[in-house]
Amino acid sequence: MTDSESRLDRIFDFIIEADKEKLVKRQTYLSDGSTKEDDAQHAWHLALMTLLLSDYSNSGIDVLKTVKMVLIHDLVEIEAGDTYAYDKHAKATARLREGLAAKKLFNLLPDDLGDELFDLWVEFDACETPEAEFAHAMDNIEPTMLNAVNGGKSWVEHDVNIGQILDRNSVTPRGSLTLWNYQFSHFIKPFWDDGTIKK
Amino acid sequence: MTDSESRLDRIFDFIIEADKEKLVKRQTYLSDGSTKEDDAQHAWHLALMTLLLSDYSNSGIDVLKTVKMVLIHDLVEIEAGDTYAYDKHAKATARLREGLAAKKLFNLLPDDLGDELFDLWVEFDACETPEAEFAHAMDNIEPTMLNAVNGGKSWVEHDVNIGQILDRNSVTPRGSLTLWNYQFSHFIKPFWDDGTIKK
Repeated sequence: MTDSESRLDRIFDFIIEADKEKLVKRQTYLSDGSTKEDDAQHAWHLALMTLLLSDYSNSGIDVLKTVKMVLIHDLVEIEAGDTYAYDKHAKATARLREGLAAKKLFNLLPDDLGDELFDLWVEFDACETPEAEFAHAMDNIEPTMLNAVNGGKSWVEHDVNIGQILDRNSVTPRGSLTLWNYQFSHFIKPFWDDGTIKK
Repeated sequence: MTDSESRLDRIFDFIIEADKEKLVKRQTYLSDGSTKEDDAQHAWHLALMTLLLSDYSNSGIDVLKTVKMVLIHDLVEIEAGDTYAYDKHAKATARLREGLAAKKLFNLLPDDLGDELFDLWVEFDACETPEAEFAHAMDNIEPTMLNAVNGGKSWVEHDVNIGQILDRNSVTPRGSLTLWNYQFSHFIKPFWDDGTIKK
């Protein structure tokens, strides 16, 4: 086997393992309320949103880097499972589970690519750079938008209150104040006003 | 309403419409054979593959442009439906149906963004630039890879023969000769040899 074949074997091992992200179900329903979203669909939607909304970032961002970040940010859930945003107990252990999962997963790749994706995942998780802050804004706005369109189906199922939503979205204005304001007035306030989101 | 709000309304109208891509089912099964892939999952996988495999393109490519192309290349199927790669009759009318769908869909966006995505979609469809050729290589390799991993489930269901696969993949070596060779030896030849793919 040549070095080039062995490198491609490792890349394809990872690409095939990544297919399992399509089986990780989230708590958010699609816009028509028919079925719950999975992690791959979610990541695709965030990447598309990043392409269309990057001009609204508070700071200038490297769009390709941000797209990479959103495409890979949930891959660790193949091993660690999806942690519902409003499940406090699971949240407490998620960081450790996800860190171990990231190591295992990105180690499938050749070292240079594995290190690049691991570093991007760590940067996303730390949420301290403009790209990570914008990626988190996308990650928060997408499910809120879907909930708003489908009438708040998962908010009602999980008895979600406004405090939980504001808490989760505390990082959203750091990525984009404009998009936070738009989200609040279009996707949150009407459902808070009518009681779909609990006080 | 300010100009900025109206612009954001149009962008979010498009982003919400795009959610329907998650409901467009394809003929390819996921790697575990449990369920068929949808267009959003497929587009996510192509984008991830592009990030990891762009070094193998025959020509230098603009990675962000290629990622944009694969993220949006199937959006027209929200209107026009998925056309199975080996359905000759549907293929004959697909181009017209998809062209009309692209006009309608990308017109939801503000003109500058709509024109950019429409032009990218036309460029993908024409398959004459290095980015479009590489995007087509990804678009062909991903389902072949999934079929190989799940034992050729949709090849068997549709009685697919080697001529159809080679015909569809006629553009793949134009994007990447290395990846075409890898695909042929790992994902096609073993299944041709053992009869899963018909002669």
